[in-house]
Amino acid sequence: MQPVQQYIHENKGRFLEELLELLRIPSISADPAYKGEVRRAAEYVAESLRKSGADRVEIIETGGHPVVYGEKITAPDLPTVMVYGHYDVQPPDPLDLWTTGPFEPEIRKTPLHPEGAIFARGSADDKGQFFMHLKAFEAMSANGPLPCNIKFMIEGEEEVGSANLEGFLKAHAGRLKCDVILVSDTHMIARDVPSITVGLRGLSYVEVEVQGPNRDLHSGLYGGAVANPINILAKMIASLHDENNHIAIPGFYDDVEVVAPAERKAMNEAPYDEEAYKKELDIRMVHGEAGFTTLERTAIRPTLDVNGIWGGYTGEGAKTVLPAKAFAKISMRLVPHQDPEKITELFAAHFKTIAPPSVKVQVRYHHGGYPVVTPTDTPEYLAAHKAMETTFGKAPIPQRGGGSIPIVALFENILGVKTVLMGFGLDTDSIHSPNEHYGLFFFFKGIETIPHFYQYYAELKKD
Amino acid sequence: MQPVQQYIHENKGRFLEELLELLRIPSISADPAYKGEVRRAAEYVAESLRKSGADRVEIIETGGHPVVYGEKITAPDLPTVMVYGHYDVQPPDPLDLWTTGPFEPEIRKTPLHPEGAIFARGSADDKGQFFMHLKAFEAMSANGPLPCNIKFMIEGEEEVGSANLEGFLKAHAGRLKCDVILVSDTHMIARDVPSITVGLRGLSYVEVEVQGPNRDLHSGLYGGAVANPINILAKMIASLHDENNHIAIPGFYDDVEVVAPAERKAMNEAPYDEEAYKKELDIRMVHGEAGFTTLERTAIRPTLDVNGIWGGYTGEGAKTVLPAKAFAKISMRLVPHQDPEKITELFAAHFKTIAPPSVKVQVRYHHGGYPVVTPTDTPEYLAAHKAMETTFGKAPIPQRGGGSIPIVALFENILGVKTVLMGFGLDTDSIHSPNEHYGLFFFFKGIETIPHFYQYYAELKKD
Repeated sequence: MQPVQQYIHENKGRFLEELLELLRIPSISADPAYKGEVRRAAEYVAESLRKSGADRVEIIETGGHPVVYGEKITAPDLPTVMVYGHYDVQPPDPLDLWTTGPFEPEIRKTPLHPEGAIFARGSADDKGQFFMHLKAFEAMSANGPLPCNIKFMIEGEEEVGSANLEGFLKAHAGRLKCDVILVSDTHMIARDVPSITVGLRGLSYVEVEVQGPNRDLHSGLYGGAVANPINILAKMIASLHDENNHIAIPGFYDDVEVVAPAERKAMNEAPYDEEAYKKELDIRMVHGEAGFTTLERTAIRPTLDVNGIWGGYTGEGAKTVLPAKAFAKISMRLVPHQDPEKITELFAAHFKTIAPPSVKVQVRYHHGGYPVVTPTDTPEYLAAHKAMETTFGKAPIPQRGGGSIPIVALFENILGVKTVLMGFGLDTDSIHSPNEHYGLFFFFKGIETIPHFYQYYAELKKD
Repeated sequence: MQPVQQYIHENKGRFLEELLELLRIPSISADPAYKGEVRRAAEYVAESLRKSGADRVEIIETGGHPVVYGEKITAPDLPTVMVYGHYDVQPPDPLDLWTTGPFEPEIRKTPLHPEGAIFARGSADDKGQFFMHLKAFEAMSANGPLPCNIKFMIEGEEEVGSANLEGFLKAHAGRLKCDVILVSDTHMIARDVPSITVGLRGLSYVEVEVQGPNRDLHSGLYGGAVANPINILAKMIASLHDENNHIAIPGFYDDVEVVAPAERKAMNEAPYDEEAYKKELDIRMVHGEAGFTTLERTAIRPTLDVNGIWGGYTGEGAKTVLPAKAFAKISMRLVPHQDPEKITELFAAHFKTIAPPSVKVQVRYHHGGYPVVTPTDTPEYLAAHKAMETTFGKAPIPQRGGGSIPIVALFENILGVKTVLMGFGLDTDSIHSPNEHYGLFFFFKGIETIPHFYQYYAELKKD
């Protein structure tokens, strides 16, 4: 391993420069106005793969943004690892809350990142994290034969629900054949508490529209006599949780996995300081489902959050309008064994049921994903464990994550392959938020750790 | 009266052209970007007053947008009428719902307006209506001595709460001395059901902010553990009405006038067709406070409407954000004898009380106004009654309006003068909405009616 680590050490500056270049491309997959930029990011990734030593590099079209593929097949009898990541990013708004431009990466020191962190949209989610794999691969390629065959599949639609990926996996199942999928798109507990994600929540994301009158009305002339769609929407949203913050959609919890008391106990032994958590978010109280701790609420319990709401006059000053329509984007995080399609249907049916006859309601389906739990007794999990232990000097602990990577369930269902979630971010990286950042310590530590994974994985598979 | 009416008849085309010119000026008082346009409208009004025969025309500065003043004093022993109106308009958004540009007036026929209606922001509220007074004044000035002294006070901040008008009235009380104030900024029941507004609701308008965490969060990592300010705001808004649609703010109804059964009975005898009302708005059901009819709900009962709401991601596609903040603009229409300041305080105190400890709440005060009821036995009411009866061929009926013209209470409190509300709009004119319009029939009928008012008023004051 010595030459590989030496190579990494000597090329740190260039690795960082190359990442910054990628971060300057505003590859916002949700906004059609950025279609060209998304493609430009794909081209940059393809070129990086080529330069790093990958063969058969190709930008493969889908119905939406393309997938970048590349591979290095060393020997047919070696195990094959496929690295998955995504080069698209979340929209950066609200823009005015960014200290520096979301696509003008800047390195600043923070209390958690004394070596500096890269502030830019996508720095942690997921450009910074998948780029570690490209650079680890480059370091290995430059220093002798690889211990595994490696494939790369870097997509451009993760932040909009990976709608075209199912078709892509089916169409290219042969080329994507592998023994395991390796993903760095999650976080660890802390710099001195390495962890590996062993569960992810699923997702159901909908947009609702409540229509009252056929046009905006003067609230003086009609107020009190005509249903106000904002008031009605507020009432409908409010009714979606009961007084214990349980979700009040009939059937919603039917398939929820009941986690064994022993596992809940183990989960609650993970390092967690509620006072520090509250202080970091500047909140007086945490807020969630009765009967569960914060660690449980974000890992093993489903949620329902309004991600956006709008209606009526939202400009400066006052306008006495009784609007025709009000809208909300609502997402539900799901846990094993909830089915996102079933949940979306339950939501839509319930939402229509609770609408009073004075309004009309529409529910539009955005995207969803299945929850996953990954095993901890597989060669890939053990390889990740040993790799992190080697570089962090401490055994990582298994952790269930609250986020969703719908693709993980797809990999299992379509390719029949398990995924290992070896992420190097922190939950404080502000992903999806203004001032997203990624610590340099984690970026370089990731690059150093990844070659060990391949080494251990090859050894464990041989046994 | 013959020469005056003849003059009006002969100048109709020009009167209309002059109004269209005024409607082309986007005098949106709420938006600082339109400050120059608001001033341009003031200048246009001043110039129109001068051309119509007014003396001492002046654009008088205030802390905000200016007031246009002009007068014609014929003889000291004649009664003095002051015309009040406003040259500012509501913001036109949502722009995409306008058939033609809000500031590109177009005349189109509609079922209710077979002669055509002028489609433009401000056409009915209030440019079209106050401009009738200028043109009636011109017709009278051009045809012999006026039966009354006439003053004009046309302001530019009505749509943002007339914040500077109290000071203005106090500062210019001498110049504004008059016997009655005449306002056309309300509507009548129908073309064949003339009516005069004898009551107006008051207003309390606030903006609320609910803050959860100190930054936008990823809803997967934090969802379920941290209070989502949109969900909380929805719950708080929902709780402001009980199951009977009574407003659930303690003390809110304490000062509400109990209208006598006889007056309620008379009110419900006004022409009103609920099926037509629902059809025109395309709603399946009206929606309001239990125990009151639609006519009562919009006239003698207070309301609470959310006029705007926003928070989180509202762009295209999906973003799984747990936002830091959510906002709403909320207005309450008030009835005699509710005090807008007291109501605003009750609201703010209650809103803070119902906020859970997991969020922080702010309430900002936009503007308010007192409710008014005007007597029906005064010379000015009788003069308006006779004037409308003369031109419409039918006695107008008294009607309480649901809207608010806060200035009416100010006139009474500061100048000690009553107001007569002789409006010529229809409630279907879409004021404050896209496609606001004003029927040509009503514009010209108003110009014809106004000279009769002065004639009758002078006669009745002499008696």
